[in-house]
Amino acid sequence: MNYRMLLYLLCVILLIEAAFLLIPLLVALVYGESVVPFLITVGVLVAVAVPGVLQKPKNTKIYAKEGFVTVALSWLLMSAFGALPFVLSGAIPNYIDAFFETCSGFSTTGASILRVIEGLPKGVLFWRSFTHWIGGMGVLVFMLAILPQGGHAIYLLRAEVPGPTKGKLVPKLRHTAIILYGIYIVLTVAEVVALLITGMPLYDSLVNAFGTAGTGGFSVLNDSIAGYNNPAAEWVIAVFMLIFGINFNLYFFILIGKWRELLKSEELRVYLSLALISVTVICIQTYNTFDSFSDCIRSSFFQTTSIVSTSGFSTRDFDLWPGLTKMLLVFLMFTGSCAGSTAGGVKISRLLIVFKNTMREIKHMLHPRSVNTVRVDGEPVPEETVRSAVNYITLYLTVFIVSALAISVDGFSFETNFTGTLACLNNIGPGLGKVGPAGNYADFSVFSKIILSFDMLFGRLELMPMIILFSPSTWRKK
Amino acid sequence: MNYRMLLYLLCVILLIEAAFLLIPLLVALVYGESVVPFLITVGVLVAVAVPGVLQKPKNTKIYAKEGFVTVALSWLLMSAFGALPFVLSGAIPNYIDAFFETCSGFSTTGASILRVIEGLPKGVLFWRSFTHWIGGMGVLVFMLAILPQGGHAIYLLRAEVPGPTKGKLVPKLRHTAIILYGIYIVLTVAEVVALLITGMPLYDSLVNAFGTAGTGGFSVLNDSIAGYNNPAAEWVIAVFMLIFGINFNLYFFILIGKWRELLKSEELRVYLSLALISVTVICIQTYNTFDSFSDCIRSSFFQTTSIVSTSGFSTRDFDLWPGLTKMLLVFLMFTGSCAGSTAGGVKISRLLIVFKNTMREIKHMLHPRSVNTVRVDGEPVPEETVRSAVNYITLYLTVFIVSALAISVDGFSFETNFTGTLACLNNIGPGLGKVGPAGNYADFSVFSKIILSFDMLFGRLELMPMIILFSPSTWRKK
Repeated sequence: MNYRMLLYLLCVILLIEAAFLLIPLLVALVYGESVVPFLITVGVLVAVAVPGVLQKPKNTKIYAKEGFVTVALSWLLMSAFGALPFVLSGAIPNYIDAFFETCSGFSTTGASILRVIEGLPKGVLFWRSFTHWIGGMGVLVFMLAILPQGGHAIYLLRAEVPGPTKGKLVPKLRHTAIILYGIYIVLTVAEVVALLITGMPLYDSLVNAFGTAGTGGFSVLNDSIAGYNNPAAEWVIAVFMLIFGINFNLYFFILIGKWRELLKSEELRVYLSLALISVTVICIQTYNTFDSFSDCIRSSFFQTTSIVSTSGFSTRDFDLWPGLTKMLLVFLMFTGSCAGSTAGGVKISRLLIVFKNTMREIKHMLHPRSVNTVRVDGEPVPEETVRSAVNYITLYLTVFIVSALAISVDGFSFETNFTGTLACLNNIGPGLGKVGPAGNYADFSVFSKIILSFDMLFGRLELMPMIILFSPSTWRKK
Repeated sequence: MNYRMLLYLLCVILLIEAAFLLIPLLVALVYGESVVPFLITVGVLVAVAVPGVLQKPKNTKIYAKEGFVTVALSWLLMSAFGALPFVLSGAIPNYIDAFFETCSGFSTTGASILRVIEGLPKGVLFWRSFTHWIGGMGVLVFMLAILPQGGHAIYLLRAEVPGPTKGKLVPKLRHTAIILYGIYIVLTVAEVVALLITGMPLYDSLVNAFGTAGTGGFSVLNDSIAGYNNPAAEWVIAVFMLIFGINFNLYFFILIGKWRELLKSEELRVYLSLALISVTVICIQTYNTFDSFSDCIRSSFFQTTSIVSTSGFSTRDFDLWPGLTKMLLVFLMFTGSCAGSTAGGVKISRLLIVFKNTMREIKHMLHPRSVNTVRVDGEPVPEETVRSAVNYITLYLTVFIVSALAISVDGFSFETNFTGTLACLNNIGPGLGKVGPAGNYADFSVFSKIILSFDMLFGRLELMPMIILFSPSTWRKK
């Protein structure tokens, strides 16, 4: 393990966090609120991190192991320090609650322990939503975009970007990171402008765009997006949630004129089909609860894109909807959206690989001498990728079962335990029951809040980095 | 596909079913009840099946595909015909309900649509419990034991006996089948004797022993085993449920003096450890609801062995127990017990292989050049077996999700849909909520009852036979 380089990278990340914190500090200043919580946090980060970056290590080489550990520790530390403004401002006096809220922010989950949101300082709520935006594309990708890194930095990108296959869009790693962040920023600005046009104030347009872009789902109103009573804004957010759930590589292909890649993408087809099926089912099952057909379509579309993109904004309490609709939403919580997007969940491309592999196994059973390869988008998938996708499912189940068992100590209902774990592990936010759109995570014990906080990071980083961080063999000397 | 041989085998199976039906017919005679329902059913079976067995096909060779299809169709047809006595006696007037109950019987699930059981004809209830006993070890294994079969009949055994690895205990297939049924009969008789000693009447001892031996869980009292108010009988049944959840191969090893195999079995250790943990947790969480410590221990032990062996008998309504206990029971419903037993579930040995494979993958990620094999009981597991165990999990999840989505059309709670599907697919019987120990499956729609009936057979036959039966490529001509 290259400890020197690990320490150096972690300190760089903390300094980037300090820089990011200057933006909510500015917002607090504009609204005449106290900037002390932000000043102290920035001060602590600088004091801790500056000594570590003064001398760049001679050996900057890192491998898979260092990549995973750096990413996992970065996210843990960012959450640990990012929680300070909530505590120092008094918005969330309890540190564990603040840590939960920050993990939820960075991991783009959007699960909240806040019972009342309105009335909290604007600067603090801005930071809360801004963590979604930072977490969406990832802070290490950001670092790779602004600071050229030698020595196998590809492992950092691989460990942070979600999906079964990760690679560079262009030969240079740094250019890949810049392209990804470029698309991310352009789309975010486009949403802010669209929301402004619908009549939403600038502050709200910004925080909601952050929540959408990161597919997070934190809102600054108690009633989430429903609180605006602004159908046009609901449409804008719903469409952008769908957009941010799509693999960013496809936007890159559009940019360079390779439209055919869009048509070839099986993942995109499945993603849009799932959304269409869900909207249809919800419309059929709930139309009698709406005043008009346009209300019904809008709410069904909004709730579908919110769940399938793992954002978790709400305009309706879907916990009150009928059985099939709820079950379908739980299923979409599980699938999540496309790899290489800012969204969570198991990822459709991974499920596609696993499903096609299972079909192959059945074929193999019937015709033992047949040899088949798994193909996605017409291309053969390497066996290594197939194996790791299948293993992801079992690993995922293990983490899920252990977490659900652990939090059930609190004695809430099966529905709450099950969907609460699912909503955190898959970075959605609201589940059903006590943690439904009308509820929150406040009543869980400290123990369960810590478990769920880790689940959110496990989910955002797609298990491996966190598992390798906690695996004893990682730290064993050869 | 060797259609002639397939037809021949199916007709043999139906004649065996006709022979089995003579036993409840006798019981009806003893209790002075109408034997007409049984006579008609036997008549129909004989009329349908005799023409098919008059001439044995010249080509008796069957392969994997024929093995799977024969097993799947046998179980479907046995359930379809086995439902007739319920309908003809008026005990279950609706045919779909009767089909559900019979699938539940043969698959050793024990899920019931009956609201009131007491008062139904003794002969019919005897048949209901006897289906558990037939389904426990499997009717094709029975056929192999009584009729010598040439030509690759091993494929029949493989398709019917549960577990990730299936093989012969002794070189001769027929002797293996005889040994398995021999152990099964001896253990069943032992339980009947033990129950008689506790003061349970002969009829009740028989039906409850059938329910235990097959790990089914149908009871002849409305309150299941609690209705007897007989603590000694509860202990007997609890211990035998644990016994029937253990791999029968181990009993064979005891018989031939190979005690060391018992100590080597990791599956057995995990099985007993899970049971011990569950008893402890239940005791701790529920002791204040019991009158005495012995009550608490007995009920905790009974409910644990009932669930971990996938029997589903109940002495307490565990749906009223606290969060962790319920969550733990749901987890045990998922794991099930040992391969090669009469029990359902995913099977511990399969989960062991999958878990060890996942650990191997993590190791491989940290040390890409390392080569490891998965070992169970100290022996290396063939990669083919590892792959099929891992694929079983994804296939299982697919069937589970599709079924749970389908039955949620009925609009019941998430808990009911989830645990109902789990309890049927894993052959347990009771779940939580509407299908908890105090409830039943009566209120589901015809559509959902058919889905759940198929789930029970999917679970008992471990997916592949049913999937291959319904796979179009099975029936396509080369």
